[in-house]
Amino acid sequence: MEVELKEMLDELESLKGSLPDPPNASIDKLQLHIKRLTDLAKSAPVRRSKLKDMSAEVVDSNPYSRLMALQRMGIVENYERIREYSVAIVGIGGVGSVAAEMLTRCGIGRLLLYDYDKVELANMNRLFFRPEQVGMTKTDAAVQTLQDINPDVVLESYTLNITTVQGFETFMSSLRNKTFRLEKEGSGVDLVLSCVDNYEARMVVNQACNELNQTWMESGVSEDAVSGHIQLLIPGETACFACAPPLVVASGVDERTLKREGVCAASLPTTMGVVAGLLVQNTLKFLLKFGHVSPYLGYNSLKDYFPTMEMRPNPQCSNGACLERQKEYLLAKPARDAAKAKMEAETLSAAEGPLHADNEWNISVVDNSEIDVKAAASSDTLPVGLTRELPSADEYPKLPATGPADMSVDDLEELKKQLEALNAD
Amino acid sequence: MEVELKEMLDELESLKGSLPDPPNASIDKLQLHIKRLTDLAKSAPVRRSKLKDMSAEVVDSNPYSRLMALQRMGIVENYERIREYSVAIVGIGGVGSVAAEMLTRCGIGRLLLYDYDKVELANMNRLFFRPEQVGMTKTDAAVQTLQDINPDVVLESYTLNITTVQGFETFMSSLRNKTFRLEKEGSGVDLVLSCVDNYEARMVVNQACNELNQTWMESGVSEDAVSGHIQLLIPGETACFACAPPLVVASGVDERTLKREGVCAASLPTTMGVVAGLLVQNTLKFLLKFGHVSPYLGYNSLKDYFPTMEMRPNPQCSNGACLERQKEYLLAKPARDAAKAKMEAETLSAAEGPLHADNEWNISVVDNSEIDVKAAASSDTLPVGLTRELPSADEYPKLPATGPADMSVDDLEELKKQLEALNAD
Repeated sequence: MEVELKEMLDELESLKGSLPDPPNASIDKLQLHIKRLTDLAKSAPVRRSKLKDMSAEVVDSNPYSRLMALQRMGIVENYERIREYSVAIVGIGGVGSVAAEMLTRCGIGRLLLYDYDKVELANMNRLFFRPEQVGMTKTDAAVQTLQDINPDVVLESYTLNITTVQGFETFMSSLRNKTFRLEKEGSGVDLVLSCVDNYEARMVVNQACNELNQTWMESGVSEDAVSGHIQLLIPGETACFACAPPLVVASGVDERTLKREGVCAASLPTTMGVVAGLLVQNTLKFLLKFGHVSPYLGYNSLKDYFPTMEMRPNPQCSNGACLERQKEYLLAKPARDAAKAKMEAETLSAAEGPLHADNEWNISVVDNSEIDVKAAASSDTLPVGLTRELPSADEYPKLPATGPADMSVDDLEELKKQLEALNAD
Repeated sequence: MEVELKEMLDELESLKGSLPDPPNASIDKLQLHIKRLTDLAKSAPVRRSKLKDMSAEVVDSNPYSRLMALQRMGIVENYERIREYSVAIVGIGGVGSVAAEMLTRCGIGRLLLYDYDKVELANMNRLFFRPEQVGMTKTDAAVQTLQDINPDVVLESYTLNITTVQGFETFMSSLRNKTFRLEKEGSGVDLVLSCVDNYEARMVVNQACNELNQTWMESGVSEDAVSGHIQLLIPGETACFACAPPLVVASGVDERTLKREGVCAASLPTTMGVVAGLLVQNTLKFLLKFGHVSPYLGYNSLKDYFPTMEMRPNPQCSNGACLERQKEYLLAKPARDAAKAKMEAETLSAAEGPLHADNEWNISVVDNSEIDVKAAASSDTLPVGLTRELPSADEYPKLPATGPADMSVDDLEELKKQLEALNAD
């Protein structure tokens, strides 16, 4: 625009020179118009430049001062490590877009965004997208907004449907790509956030993460818009999405199918904002190692009730990759136990007895190690209001009595056959 | 811009006519430049036009379809009533700006926004404001964004500090203004949301709402950015902000003072987004009459723990307007009880006995009226982890034994003297 205006001014100058009787009033007026347009163009948004380091300096111009303050407050040990991390967000809708904005404003290193849909006016009842973006793909619109907010974040946008064969392949190879941090172990990302709105896509994310041994978090909002949840899934260690599948699933019904019949799911910016906030807060706790990462957290907005629970993997899971991860996790148990015992011994010897056995305030440290053990042992009991849809492992009499720790590959094959036989009934 | 370009084109045309030897190549080139600039201007964002009604029609172009679906889902009886309501938001920072955006996207009738501060790059770690808005007042920047998102919302922006004498007067008169809905009882707004970041401003909102007998919700986020809360305050019925003041308050210390010393509070878009979401969700429940409005809801993000509690007004409150509201509330008790008894009787006669006393599924309705009574009676017991900072009413032996219901104005004067004497110790 400014180039265009500059060229016009030059052209006008040469026109003035070529005229027989300068000065000409029309030319003066045109020059004035161009000057006003140039001013208008100059007042347009100026982007901030990239910042090499995250400074803790408390000045109005520092976009990171309030985040680096988390270190001084003793919440996070090294906030700047966030720049090393890559997070993939699948589904850039009411939850995914807000999660992407939060991570961008927190200064995450790299964001991978996946969606195949376009922005519609019907999305305007949720945060993030603006009416002027209607018609753009959600990934393009998100990149446009996010790179203006924080140019320090590396944004990768994938406009594709992960439930197609081609889409799944691109999804997998993008997760495997390690060019952002070559020395990183495992896949190329540190966490996958599932923010999709249907069962099929969740099963695809589950498959990908089980295959890649990739920790991920699942999120969801109910069709009546008033409840939601987040869940942490660590392949082999926690239940995968197929370990306890919902018993009733609308087959092949997604938002598009519903719309054809003149029906759509309700949604609210509040519920989706809360779920995105809880999701990214747990993402920050997971990446920056502070607080307790919730294995499962529900949100019932009508009662402001937040149920929690833990789910261990199902040895009868229908997902083959999940069974492999379970086996690896169990095989690594002795090594894990040894490492844990060593750490506990070191902690104990470092703190031989209480620091101040006797003090004037009569403060004493309560030993709660026994409580912890009990809590861990009862982690498979469900909170009030939840019932188990699948039988527990104890109800399969043909299982090896010693449990899955001693399972060989043959046992697993046998199990799969049993499960298939059960499913065929 | 388009006007400017149109005028240029006309000017160029008249110049062309005034020249001795048309056609002139320079003029053709200038016309081409103007045409290109016009195309550029046309491709700029187009705002959506105002909508007279909230339609439930399920089409991509309807910004209200997902909200109106709340009616079909049985959550809300009449969603469109939201257009009749006015909400005032004091403090357009990390919580207030997001609350404003959520209410705007929900199609609230009218929003009143109060703030005196300007947007800075240091605010970019929270949602809503964009780097290009740095230097604008928060109220102007908010109006700019919100009217683009939803032109149906009536936005009123007040760039003022409510803690100054002049600011407080404008604040009060704006809350009293009823031109938006003349028939409305009480003040001109339906709810005030306090989203400020300091004690002084909270006390001012408290004073205004006690004087106006205005229901409001308070919100806050801790200085270490990892916890927050929301609280419902109904003058006379619940504790006001002065009924149970924090015992330790940093005197005169706000963000500006702190910054001078090179120290600032930490903040996170996650915690603030969750608090804003919980605040506006409870606002929707309050205005549209669904679900349970939480009297107090905390958010401890390190543990994902959400404490709740209820606080009744303090008969020794230092706020005179609060004591007046308490007196009015107690005086109106017989009328409230009669209305309640009448409603219960009607409900009982309408449902004479269970609908299906006997059914093949052996489903029976449990009478939980006794449980409700117990829960209400114990509403002043605090949850685990909370301690009372002020003595309870029982610990004041000089109080009339029958409680505040029988207090006269003289009793209240006497009480105030007692309290002042206590404070002077």
